[in-house]
Amino acid sequence: MYSVAELNDLLTAELQRRSEDLKEMKPGNLYEPVDYSLEMGGKRLRPLLLLLSCNMFSDSVREALPAAVAIEMFHNFTLLHDDIMDKAEVRRNRPTVHKKFSENSAILSGDVMAFLSYSYLLESKSKDLEEILKLFTKTAIEVCEGQQLDMEFENRLLVAEDEYIEMIRLKTAVLLACALKAGALLGSAKLDVANQLYEFGINLGLAFQLQDDLLDSFGVQESFGKKIGGDIVANKKTYLLIKALETADSELRNELTCWLKKAEYNPTEKINAVLDIYNRLNIKELTQHKVDCYFDKCNTVIGQIMVSENQKQHLHEISRSMLNRVH
Amino acid sequence: MYSVAELNDLLTAELQRRSEDLKEMKPGNLYEPVDYSLEMGGKRLRPLLLLLSCNMFSDSVREALPAAVAIEMFHNFTLLHDDIMDKAEVRRNRPTVHKKFSENSAILSGDVMAFLSYSYLLESKSKDLEEILKLFTKTAIEVCEGQQLDMEFENRLLVAEDEYIEMIRLKTAVLLACALKAGALLGSAKLDVANQLYEFGINLGLAFQLQDDLLDSFGVQESFGKKIGGDIVANKKTYLLIKALETADSELRNELTCWLKKAEYNPTEKINAVLDIYNRLNIKELTQHKVDCYFDKCNTVIGQIMVSENQKQHLHEISRSMLNRVH
Repeated sequence: MYSVAELNDLLTAELQRRSEDLKEMKPGNLYEPVDYSLEMGGKRLRPLLLLLSCNMFSDSVREALPAAVAIEMFHNFTLLHDDIMDKAEVRRNRPTVHKKFSENSAILSGDVMAFLSYSYLLESKSKDLEEILKLFTKTAIEVCEGQQLDMEFENRLLVAEDEYIEMIRLKTAVLLACALKAGALLGSAKLDVANQLYEFGINLGLAFQLQDDLLDSFGVQESFGKKIGGDIVANKKTYLLIKALETADSELRNELTCWLKKAEYNPTEKINAVLDIYNRLNIKELTQHKVDCYFDKCNTVIGQIMVSENQKQHLHEISRSMLNRVH
Repeated sequence: MYSVAELNDLLTAELQRRSEDLKEMKPGNLYEPVDYSLEMGGKRLRPLLLLLSCNMFSDSVREALPAAVAIEMFHNFTLLHDDIMDKAEVRRNRPTVHKKFSENSAILSGDVMAFLSYSYLLESKSKDLEEILKLFTKTAIEVCEGQQLDMEFENRLLVAEDEYIEMIRLKTAVLLACALKAGALLGSAKLDVANQLYEFGINLGLAFQLQDDLLDSFGVQESFGKKIGGDIVANKKTYLLIKALETADSELRNELTCWLKKAEYNPTEKINAVLDIYNRLNIKELTQHKVDCYFDKCNTVIGQIMVSENQKQHLHEISRSMLNRVH
């Protein structure tokens, strides 16, 4: 088995090779934003999950590299289009594609990225290719559904907890799960085992997103990488806000709603006031508990997968590192 | 063999069924624009080409219906995104999706349409499914390249004839060709025969687009369906304008360029002035000759396909009707 570092090296080399191909492709104005987006980097979690899942069942991880790049390309496609819709100006400390190039570029180069991801996926040699393509397509449709729900929630004051969980399942978790299941199938795992990897991925994705919500309000800026309190300033319907609105008594709910409705305010003051309300409602502990529940489910699912403990190590390692667990 | 009318009826029923499915799908705000776009109608040429190509080799055209809907869904996806990029407000006499709903809706519902087209395609039962998916993906990438070139040409004064032909090959012809080749493969035609259908489709597509250019300036409004002269008013780089700039002497070229640069003008006056220049340069005859050349190539390719004359009738019928030939 490869180490996670070795898998990362394989992936980096493959992405580098694809980036060089993109620089040669015509028309250059179509492919330059694609390359820009791919070179932006990011954690490359999804392709890594695909490779290490494949590696649990097979040593031929190189054959899974095109599919790994496909997943990363698809993820970047969603970022391009989401950034237009959200009017985001910065991503990973660089201007977003629609800001650096143009909105039309971000639409059309995004489109071609969606099709390039199929093109890469179709390079895979696997008896399960049709199954993988169906999984990928179902996942892509669900990610669009998740983005739609996310946009709709922005315009609603009340979102129920289960609605929120369903939204992040669609927007975030299914793609992690798809990467893991596709990797398993490319490693010639049986379908029922691949489905266990999918279930692991869903729980990992939910825990990961909830933790992201948590860190945005309670994290340490240096390690989080983004400005703390951004979600609070933007009134983003996170798990924290949803639980606060749900558990607050009417007086505290009024206080919170008042901050949500304020048109003019000092951002630091708003962040501190909302954090204070969260603290009074134990929102941090409540969210942490939910993260722990999904993390526990991950471990339960790993326990059920019929492979050796040695093969499972990567799954433990990656879920601990994604969820910042040292134990 | 089915008649073209019968194939059209099969297609209409299938699209109706899919439309009913879409009305049930959640979130409704994501799928409503998809259904709106599909119900807009249009000529449905591409799915019809797929079905009649399939029917040349097989009686089981029903099995090609999901792929036919996939091609139509993909085509409509390109219209949604092109209309945003071109800032078009009306399509088929109804408001475009980004006007009726919102730009974000047109982006995201467009995206889900691209993936729905794969989802439909993946319903096909065919030993050549992988080949068809590769063809479809290559085609989708090329259509994006064609749209990119089309947008770039808008900002250039000089476009060479061969650049223009390459642009319309990518933007228009490859999808007709893909429909015909996919149909043939779904009808279990051999790959070399399917490739002949592809070549027929390329020539048909080029002739069709050049004729569209021609009709926009020299057509009769009632039968064309759009306002005559729209391309002239918009300075669209059509085959007519490209040939006029190429063949005009310096005096006439100056006259034409002068109209292209004018910021304020009476539209009817501009149309008449440019048409007059076209007439002095025999642009109508020159373009008609080019259409005839591609139409002749279509017939040559049909002649080479090794199937009975009876099986070829549909190809003759559809190319004549698309190119308004009575002979």
